[in-house]
Amino acid sequence: MEVEKIQRVPSYKMLAEALVQNILDGRLKVGDALPTEAVLCDSFGVNRSTVREGVRLLEEAGMLLRNGKKLLITHPSREQLGAQVQRAMVLKEVRIEELWEGLFILDPALAELAALRRTEAAVEALAANVKATEEALDRGDPVVQLDIEFHSLVAEAADNHALLVAREPLGRLLFPAFDVVMTKVGSAGDRLLTAHTAIFEAIRKKDAAGARKWMEKHIQDFKRGYEVAGVDMRTPVVQVQKTSAAR
Amino acid sequence: MEVEKIQRVPSYKMLAEALVQNILDGRLKVGDALPTEAVLCDSFGVNRSTVREGVRLLEEAGMLLRNGKKLLITHPSREQLGAQVQRAMVLKEVRIEELWEGLFILDPALAELAALRRTEAAVEALAANVKATEEALDRGDPVVQLDIEFHSLVAEAADNHALLVAREPLGRLLFPAFDVVMTKVGSAGDRLLTAHTAIFEAIRKKDAAGARKWMEKHIQDFKRGYEVAGVDMRTPVVQVQKTSAAR
Repeated sequence: MEVEKIQRVPSYKMLAEALVQNILDGRLKVGDALPTEAVLCDSFGVNRSTVREGVRLLEEAGMLLRNGKKLLITHPSREQLGAQVQRAMVLKEVRIEELWEGLFILDPALAELAALRRTEAAVEALAANVKATEEALDRGDPVVQLDIEFHSLVAEAADNHALLVAREPLGRLLFPAFDVVMTKVGSAGDRLLTAHTAIFEAIRKKDAAGARKWMEKHIQDFKRGYEVAGVDMRTPVVQVQKTSAAR
Repeated sequence: MEVEKIQRVPSYKMLAEALVQNILDGRLKVGDALPTEAVLCDSFGVNRSTVREGVRLLEEAGMLLRNGKKLLITHPSREQLGAQVQRAMVLKEVRIEELWEGLFILDPALAELAALRRTEAAVEALAANVKATEEALDRGDPVVQLDIEFHSLVAEAADNHALLVAREPLGRLLFPAFDVVMTKVGSAGDRLLTAHTAIFEAIRKKDAAGARKWMEKHIQDFKRGYEVAGVDMRTPVVQVQKTSAAR
């Protein structure tokens, strides 16, 4: 009876899993070339089409980079990792208020850590972002991408890779949803710039309490903007940007 | 010159992306059968092998469920979504202290929300988990899976799907890493049970402050356990469980 429960695993999946294991173990390192199809056929005792399908899975997972005819081992980017989770959140009809609540918990804590740990390079990256945001607002250009980037830079400065990867899809989904407020509430751009500037200054001065406090105010202000614009935060979030599946 | 920069997108990827878009738009709903290969060939003007490869990508992304000969639309599970992120964290050599810090920020906030929002069903699920943990400790069985589940149940009770998905890989990677403390520090099991019981009771009584405080203590205790066991939390985390890639 138990035999019925056994799930067949296709051989291309087993091959992909075996290659992943080799990467996790460090036997295949970033920048190494993947062994040729012929070598893989030989090593695993499978045919060429199995090898090709297995390799395609690995490419899809962002673990291979095509360089001319060669395939090099690489690590998936934060964007690639986030794309799948992001899509799932849209599918599950996650509401804007849920994303907001998530960043209301995460971003003030990350701002505090950023103030304690930031490097000079992180300060420079934040300074450039704030300057670009100011210029974009002057020109009347959209600042959605700069807004996403600002919060990611703060998270990067906090130097916690687990949280950095975990929060990425939330930022990518929430900040584009703020566009509706930006177009309806005239002062929203100025308020955003004031907050980003204050958060940046606090991080630069290593003022952890100030960075947290300003980030908290800033995320609160997001909610206030929704209220002023008369938009319901219980609306399910929509996919604004292309996912990376077609790249 | 610019033409060189254009990236060719293989047709199976374009097909997969088009199907995803149909699912996101709600034209294909959960439980619907995927159109047959012949229909897909016709609708998209591609050949069978392209359709097969595109469909395989969708299956890989956890968006199709095989039911006999039929393929039904489904949403990826939290575990499937987490697997890719989890693997990336191992690849990036995320340290145990980074995971710990992530849950030190997230889990107390989630416990607080859980106390405010928990349903009767959530209370029952937590009660069953605490009871099973007590019995496993009595028998001297490992409680890693129950520990992961307890924290996931708290996150579920907080009723925020964005955070639920985001924190899953952190819990799945961190709690197994506690095994080393459990085997070295005799009192670790009792301390875990005391904390889980107190958190559960606070959530049951809708005591938000108590739930937060006990969860904070509990996650702090994790770090203390590492110190007592003399294990360095700067160690990169390892993949303890099989990823779902081979399922």
